[in-house]
Amino acid sequence: MTNGADDSGVGRRTSRRSFVRRLTVGGGALAAGLAGPARSPAAEPPAPADPTRELGHPVSPYGTRSRFETAVRVQARTPTSVASWTFTPLQDSCGIITPSALHFERHHAGVPDIDPARHRLLIHGLVRRPVVLTLADLERLPAVSRTHMIECSGNGLTEWATPTMPDVQRTHGLTSCSEWTGVLLATLLGEVGVEPAGLWVLAEGGDAAAMTRSLPIDKCLTDVLVAYGQNGEALRPEQGYPLRLVVPGWEGNTHVKWLRRLKVVAAPAQTREETAKYTDLLPDGTARQFTFVMEAKSVITFPSGGHRLPGSGLYELRGLAWSGRGAVRSVEVSTDGGRSWQAAELQAPVLRIAHTRFRLPWRWDGRDALLQSRCTDETGYVQPTLAELVAVRGLRSHYHQNAVQSWRVAPDGRVSNVHA
Amino acid sequence: MTNGADDSGVGRRTSRRSFVRRLTVGGGALAAGLAGPARSPAAEPPAPADPTRELGHPVSPYGTRSRFETAVRVQARTPTSVASWTFTPLQDSCGIITPSALHFERHHAGVPDIDPARHRLLIHGLVRRPVVLTLADLERLPAVSRTHMIECSGNGLTEWATPTMPDVQRTHGLTSCSEWTGVLLATLLGEVGVEPAGLWVLAEGGDAAAMTRSLPIDKCLTDVLVAYGQNGEALRPEQGYPLRLVVPGWEGNTHVKWLRRLKVVAAPAQTREETAKYTDLLPDGTARQFTFVMEAKSVITFPSGGHRLPGSGLYELRGLAWSGRGAVRSVEVSTDGGRSWQAAELQAPVLRIAHTRFRLPWRWDGRDALLQSRCTDETGYVQPTLAELVAVRGLRSHYHQNAVQSWRVAPDGRVSNVHA
Repeated sequence: MTNGADDSGVGRRTSRRSFVRRLTVGGGALAAGLAGPARSPAAEPPAPADPTRELGHPVSPYGTRSRFETAVRVQARTPTSVASWTFTPLQDSCGIITPSALHFERHHAGVPDIDPARHRLLIHGLVRRPVVLTLADLERLPAVSRTHMIECSGNGLTEWATPTMPDVQRTHGLTSCSEWTGVLLATLLGEVGVEPAGLWVLAEGGDAAAMTRSLPIDKCLTDVLVAYGQNGEALRPEQGYPLRLVVPGWEGNTHVKWLRRLKVVAAPAQTREETAKYTDLLPDGTARQFTFVMEAKSVITFPSGGHRLPGSGLYELRGLAWSGRGAVRSVEVSTDGGRSWQAAELQAPVLRIAHTRFRLPWRWDGRDALLQSRCTDETGYVQPTLAELVAVRGLRSHYHQNAVQSWRVAPDGRVSNVHA
Repeated sequence: MTNGADDSGVGRRTSRRSFVRRLTVGGGALAAGLAGPARSPAAEPPAPADPTRELGHPVSPYGTRSRFETAVRVQARTPTSVASWTFTPLQDSCGIITPSALHFERHHAGVPDIDPARHRLLIHGLVRRPVVLTLADLERLPAVSRTHMIECSGNGLTEWATPTMPDVQRTHGLTSCSEWTGVLLATLLGEVGVEPAGLWVLAEGGDAAAMTRSLPIDKCLTDVLVAYGQNGEALRPEQGYPLRLVVPGWEGNTHVKWLRRLKVVAAPAQTREETAKYTDLLPDGTARQFTFVMEAKSVITFPSGGHRLPGSGLYELRGLAWSGRGAVRSVEVSTDGGRSWQAAELQAPVLRIAHTRFRLPWRWDGRDALLQSRCTDETGYVQPTLAELVAVRGLRSHYHQNAVQSWRVAPDGRVSNVHA
């Protein structure tokens, strides 16, 4: 951070003043009738020219978004749409909660159709009192709610060697953030009675892939949730309805969805997902295994790839930062490719292992600019540059790409994904 | 509060242990095959008996909830469903975020169908530089996100004289909580330049009722938002799409939806909504006017009216508390109609002017019980009993009913709404 907090604060106040000065002029023009074109979805009647002249729609039991809102998850280019993934439209997001309808997806054999009344969770293995629990059993237990991000370890996997994807949805959209509600796994494990030899927990999903991961018992006794709630209602089907693990800060595939079985075991099971998949091949030909933690990361979401700025002037740079190790301590932003940095404002409250929104005013002079953000978490870890990351990890690895992202703003206002 | 914090903590730890002891037995029975009946919606095929044997559904652009989830907003018994209201199903809620699809509604002339590209916000009156703003203009301005509850001043209006409604959805469901994103009204007003005579702001909605309220300039310069975002995406239509006021802690009708005009004026406009409506008739025949603040309130959501406890034993009492004046400091719970009280655990983070989830373990002995909760906010204000409230306000007033709610648990486990 090259600017002190005081300088930054003063700059911000001045900038905000000018933001609206500009709009006063723009507003005058608009008031004179220079309205933009209407955008109506095809094959639907336009909205009334004056909505105050028509009675509106009645109340409804379960609301939907406006027909004029079109943000969607986009699918990765995979051979099927059953074993695939979709990206959250981070460029359209605001705040820190991801709408459940837009939470990223990753399915290995599709979204199972599960009747919650028939769903069971078996906890067995090296325990003194194995149990089979219904949803009603779990909902009666002491509950906690925690706001956490979940990031796929493959987030950014296309971006190692060359800047590949056109926009922030495809470069960074495999992360989402929700308020999860459920029972602490520690509550369940403490009471079924883990045997001394029980050092790992094998978690199995109820989908057709029977997605299975091994987790160390220490983590399971700390902050792992057996979650049934998301953003105030039941989990969404594609998020594991009716039951999933939430393993705060660890790679998304460990948050086993459609959870049906937890087996306490002595050693990791070496499942397909921890041998053939979800390991990181290093330059020396060996592979990292059980690389659970998603390290600190950040990205500017506005402006970002595919945006076009209408002209020079004041903008608010916006983005998201997070760390699998705790709270975000600071985010710095550069508009000159990393030569100088300014501290961004973090939206309160800053929650541990959750999306953290940052913002910084920026006066664009109309010339080439290179936008970057860099996150530091509460452990002091600083998000690396791509060069720093590649120096250690090489280019043969898919997962855990948490490098600083660069967006180039060209003189014509077009924003593109570059490596810098 | 009659129990010290230390005592309460020890009690809680012991209780949680026993929660699962019970389930170990129950689980054993379930493992032996005593599963409950399946609940499938009518006219739909049942879910697969073993979902791991069938490929699941593909990824999707914008998700929906499971077909097995049935919680809905229920409509008040009003002559039409256009000028009506619906209640949030608080009994089914978890955490503090209300799903946008279940946020309570109150419409005076229905939900208008507004094309955001054609929507404008006019700011005029006693200002030096009137403006007309587009959505794009507003989205470019410095943004903030804040998690706030909104409560209708009529929440609980049926409950003054006799316990009328059967469940917590209908007694308390006119409050909901979202993460709102938008521009501080202070930013806009500061920059359009309020004239010294400008002491109030008239806010007008773009619905067919042109819902209009006057707000003091001091509040407008403090924490009022012109919001376009809700829980990470655009406002929902029934919440004011594309633009609403969020007036933290003040009665819901001031949070003008479908906002199209802000006029800075010298005195309140004495609109229909602040003369004929939204005033409180007192015992002496005079009326309170401009009773903006929603005072501290709380309610137990589990168990609550309409629930039936399956038998004596351990339960976790759960509920929500909030205050229009800031953060909730504490919530006390009584199971004996107010003779003794215990401090409930508050879910962190406790945010100002937001729903605050509280929880407390309770061992039900199978005899008549009277459940109550009492909120104290950061100003020291204590939620009143109904008797205390009626002593001051009488029974001729509809709005601002924030009394302690009582739920009776009968020996057969049935829970009902009572006055105590």
